[in-house]
Amino acid sequence: MSEEATPPSPFSDPASVAVVGASADPAKWGHWLARGALTGEDRRRVYLVNHRGGSVAGRIPYATLADLPEPPELVVFSVPARVVPEIVDQALELGVRGLVGISGGLEDDYELARRVRAGGARLLGPACLGLFDADTQLELAWGRFEPGALGIVSQSGQVGLELARLAAEAGIGVSRFVSVGRQADVTLEEVVGELVDHASTRVVAIYAESFGDGRELVRTVTRLTEAGKPVVVLTVGESPAARSHTGAPASSLEVVDAACRAAGAVRVRTPAEMIDLARYLLLTVRPRGNRVAIVGDSGGQGAVAADVTARSGLRVTPLPAVLAARIEAGLPDAANAINPVDLAGGGEQDLRSYARVVRELTGSGEVDAVLLTGYFGSYGEDTPMLRETELGVVAEFGFAVHRTGIPVVVHSMSADSDAVRALRDCGVPTYHTVEAAAGALGTAASFAPPCPLPLVWGSAAPVGEGYLAARDLVASAGVRFPAGVAVTDRESLLAAAERLKPPYALKADFVAHKEDTGGVELELKDAMSAVWSLEDMIHRLGAGTYVLEEMDTRQGTVEIIIGARRDPSFGPLVVVGAGGTDAELQRDTTIELGPVDTERALTMLRRLRCYPLLDGWRGRAPLDVKALAETVAAVSSVLAGCAAVAEIELNPVRVGADGVLAVDAQLTRAGEERT
Amino acid sequence: MSEEATPPSPFSDPASVAVVGASADPAKWGHWLARGALTGEDRRRVYLVNHRGGSVAGRIPYATLADLPEPPELVVFSVPARVVPEIVDQALELGVRGLVGISGGLEDDYELARRVRAGGARLLGPACLGLFDADTQLELAWGRFEPGALGIVSQSGQVGLELARLAAEAGIGVSRFVSVGRQADVTLEEVVGELVDHASTRVVAIYAESFGDGRELVRTVTRLTEAGKPVVVLTVGESPAARSHTGAPASSLEVVDAACRAAGAVRVRTPAEMIDLARYLLLTVRPRGNRVAIVGDSGGQGAVAADVTARSGLRVTPLPAVLAARIEAGLPDAANAINPVDLAGGGEQDLRSYARVVRELTGSGEVDAVLLTGYFGSYGEDTPMLRETELGVVAEFGFAVHRTGIPVVVHSMSADSDAVRALRDCGVPTYHTVEAAAGALGTAASFAPPCPLPLVWGSAAPVGEGYLAARDLVASAGVRFPAGVAVTDRESLLAAAERLKPPYALKADFVAHKEDTGGVELELKDAMSAVWSLEDMIHRLGAGTYVLEEMDTRQGTVEIIIGARRDPSFGPLVVVGAGGTDAELQRDTTIELGPVDTERALTMLRRLRCYPLLDGWRGRAPLDVKALAETVAAVSSVLAGCAAVAEIELNPVRVGADGVLAVDAQLTRAGEERT
Repeated sequence: MSEEATPPSPFSDPASVAVVGASADPAKWGHWLARGALTGEDRRRVYLVNHRGGSVAGRIPYATLADLPEPPELVVFSVPARVVPEIVDQALELGVRGLVGISGGLEDDYELARRVRAGGARLLGPACLGLFDADTQLELAWGRFEPGALGIVSQSGQVGLELARLAAEAGIGVSRFVSVGRQADVTLEEVVGELVDHASTRVVAIYAESFGDGRELVRTVTRLTEAGKPVVVLTVGESPAARSHTGAPASSLEVVDAACRAAGAVRVRTPAEMIDLARYLLLTVRPRGNRVAIVGDSGGQGAVAADVTARSGLRVTPLPAVLAARIEAGLPDAANAINPVDLAGGGEQDLRSYARVVRELTGSGEVDAVLLTGYFGSYGEDTPMLRETELGVVAEFGFAVHRTGIPVVVHSMSADSDAVRALRDCGVPTYHTVEAAAGALGTAASFAPPCPLPLVWGSAAPVGEGYLAARDLVASAGVRFPAGVAVTDRESLLAAAERLKPPYALKADFVAHKEDTGGVELELKDAMSAVWSLEDMIHRLGAGTYVLEEMDTRQGTVEIIIGARRDPSFGPLVVVGAGGTDAELQRDTTIELGPVDTERALTMLRRLRCYPLLDGWRGRAPLDVKALAETVAAVSSVLAGCAAVAEIELNPVRVGADGVLAVDAQLTRAGEERT
Repeated sequence: MSEEATPPSPFSDPASVAVVGASADPAKWGHWLARGALTGEDRRRVYLVNHRGGSVAGRIPYATLADLPEPPELVVFSVPARVVPEIVDQALELGVRGLVGISGGLEDDYELARRVRAGGARLLGPACLGLFDADTQLELAWGRFEPGALGIVSQSGQVGLELARLAAEAGIGVSRFVSVGRQADVTLEEVVGELVDHASTRVVAIYAESFGDGRELVRTVTRLTEAGKPVVVLTVGESPAARSHTGAPASSLEVVDAACRAAGAVRVRTPAEMIDLARYLLLTVRPRGNRVAIVGDSGGQGAVAADVTARSGLRVTPLPAVLAARIEAGLPDAANAINPVDLAGGGEQDLRSYARVVRELTGSGEVDAVLLTGYFGSYGEDTPMLRETELGVVAEFGFAVHRTGIPVVVHSMSADSDAVRALRDCGVPTYHTVEAAAGALGTAASFAPPCPLPLVWGSAAPVGEGYLAARDLVASAGVRFPAGVAVTDRESLLAAAERLKPPYALKADFVAHKEDTGGVELELKDAMSAVWSLEDMIHRLGAGTYVLEEMDTRQGTVEIIIGARRDPSFGPLVVVGAGGTDAELQRDTTIELGPVDTERALTMLRRLRCYPLLDGWRGRAPLDVKALAETVAAVSSVLAGCAAVAEIELNPVRVGADGVLAVDAQLTRAGEERT
């Protein structure tokens, strides 16, 4: 991406626009493009072009671009693929600065893009569904857009339209909508970057299937985050079927999640989740922690909400007794304010109880958010004489949020009553299902500050081959290994054995998958056993360098796997997992963009389900987690710092109370990647 | 529960009904009850009672029950708690057969219920929200109900109303709605049982927080399932907060899931999921397998759907090349029919492509369901000239489903167009979000036939104490242990050692948690080591019975944990888990109602994430899974058959290629449960 490459983008506020392929047929894109473009006629000149003539939106279109009274600044075209090159050439000749290609199925998108750039212009698409900009009344897309504060950038036109439609249904307006299509020239990163300074955009929704320069995108999203514009990412690839669509060796979702953490963004899984979250972000503040109080006039709905809320990553912990007692005072005897707070009919008896309870909770300092679930929002709808009281309670909710900065979220059995609309109007996100309410709140609470991502200046110095070279490289960063000595024959082995404590391990330095090829012997209890093993290995594997190592005989150690590799989009990654078969079978692994520092490594370790084993499991002494975190950080730095290294795996690393020893290391050099 | 105890239920079709507490105030329940009761006046006599007089629904209420012209068959009361006993006594004196208690907050529900039963009547509630029966026009509840085919039984009135309201919004009518309240007399199981023969009920939705005689409920639900009425269960208790609401030591969700499997029912997590599933079940057939073809006119939406579908437990596997080629013929070049099938604009070019592709897929024998995602359903809405064609395609979908028995489910970007309504009318469940569509389809596919649950006739014979007694009891069912002999001193140990192969294990028979108290020594390599250990243990733990055992020295075994216990509601359970710390930390365990046979035990093992370790992990020989399954079945039978046993744990069981050895056993006797 190249922010400084272009002066004001031709896709922002062109002085004139031409729609090539403008059509009178409402089943054609050219019809909607023309209609949309004309809505901006107050602000710019709009020209319709159609070589077939006829009448479009009450005007006679021009036959070709050359017939226009002036060269347009921006051209959008929706025409058969075979005439696209001709249209583009014509546009470039006229000095057009921007092209939006709706048409798809072109022979060679990239050749087209090259020509456009060579002609000093930029191309959005092709095969995109256009763009909309509320700030500049630029509407060159299918559908209708209400101006608002949500920026949508989508690699799939239809997913973008689904987002826009769900947003409209949710009463959320769009600030800018860009379908990037095949990104032959203008990339998704670039379009996202333009939203940093886009005035009306307050929240950014991105649908991406591939990540180009993912590391650069992380930096761009970080800038949005730091500008106070939260970013929500929707992507695919959890299933093999979805990966088959995205084609390229996609970054796994774990990597995308790591990238989101680095950028301070969050990932959602469906368009509806995205819009539910956008509604939240546009209406209220994010919770400062994950303690939620649930309030309802029904124990059952409170319990359902508690389960759903806990599943959304939030905590529904008991309220302090004093607070609970204060809430319970004035409620029926059956009421219970442990959390969930069950008004037990107290809400029905007196609607103002809701306001009082919410006021108590938001003002208590004990919770980070309040989730109200159930009938509230339906009182006035079902019983008109309660309408005014209910609206008064709504206003009190709004006031409590503004005064305390503690968000209130509502699940209402009413889909769209006056009270529900009033709730939203006063900054209380309200949803018709409890999973939508808890899901949006949970995801909103999961935003964390971006993590500065160091620029990676990998040294190009070559790295050696074999086990010892791998050991030495990783050890140079501070990772500890058992003492070991290179040996080649009986004599050197015996000399080495003098200097090392038995039992020994013997490893063939030059064999790639030592375990599978008989290149490792363990538990050699004395020098003579080691000699026999060496002679046997030389017989089987040939002469060469072998390594005689001490074994880690400590009791009570726990095995962990540490790896690092390079993602094609996101660059250096570091992976930590439970040792043995658990990393694979139990999927107990975690991943971050590398390099990480010790502190971030520590947060990775704490995410492992096996972490309790490291931290004083069943009364045992805590293991040396700090040294383990340092080892993780060291491995991540080695990979990030050496362009010649494609992958490192330390498996296992043995963690004891008195430190960490890596007892095997495997290194893959760039260009030697396993396929 | 007691099906045969009562003649035709007074809650089904009473000849007369009295509403005590009938009110003119629309904010009062008595108002809605009166209104509802009067809707059935064509079918039965309806009496309104209010001691304050006035006018309710245009009539003058009676002052007391005694003033009615006849004793009513059913009485529903919504009055202050303090007058309830008086009303009930009056009703019993008149010979009323059924009482519905809306009022809550009574002093002693169970005493009231006792009096009602003693008076030859039945009580629904108290603290319930009433009932509705479409077959008999009996409406004694808050809200408005459209007659239909969904039976709702709810332990929480508000959750029941939320279900009814969501159903109404989804156009789903209710056949019978029963809020069971505090179940002081009539239980949830009983109410559920009445739906077996309830004419219009086709699908049953249950919200339950506790399960009373859960084993009986499993049998009742099995009867519904076998009557072709699928049952969907909503419950709570995943989070500690929800468990605090349900109070009693609730059955864990894993146990409820096991009960659902036994009964052929399924569990959902929210009211909205329940109604989404009900819509599915009421409109179309359940898929016969879990292979799903996804179809969309957008690669992005197809990929999102593929991820969501896979997450719903379904398989989106590649279509055979011949089928894919047939589908691709006639679609644009960019189309791809591997699965997801991406029409790549082919749908937009010619709407009938949708019909053709769905016809190909449903007729192929290669998929169990088709999920269509995206813009379909919006064509006619956005472009009226496409309306008729779209409706024609809808009809073809319906025809394809009826002809092949392969369900088609649609996610449509339109919430409620003519096409969306037409889809539903012709048996195609249609949803506005892809997660609702895939979720309903996935849950529908997860129904499995009920599993016959043996009656448990536990022998009351006492069981002995200590390790040997546990070993013998379990061994008597066929579980293998290493050879072992009871010893008490040096002499008996030396004699035993003669008959056993070293290395040995020595265990204190009489110590409960042997590992934690130094009551176990392993790896004793000869008789003398064993003698020293014995003497040391006697010194520390005292004289008594010790057990000298052979050790399992086989290489390449995998450790598994097998347990069995009794749930207060659901009775005997059997649990299998990964050995070591994985059962706990990785939560790699699975549970069934016991006893299980070998085949069902095998399905349990296959659900473990560690199962691949048993089944030829990385080229090793497969382990003796059959013997392991037999061991699981044996343990489940022992517990089910011995009332004196509260809990059994074999931890670990070591599985080798040549059989299974339990290397420890712990038994808790009834009355000795750990707390």
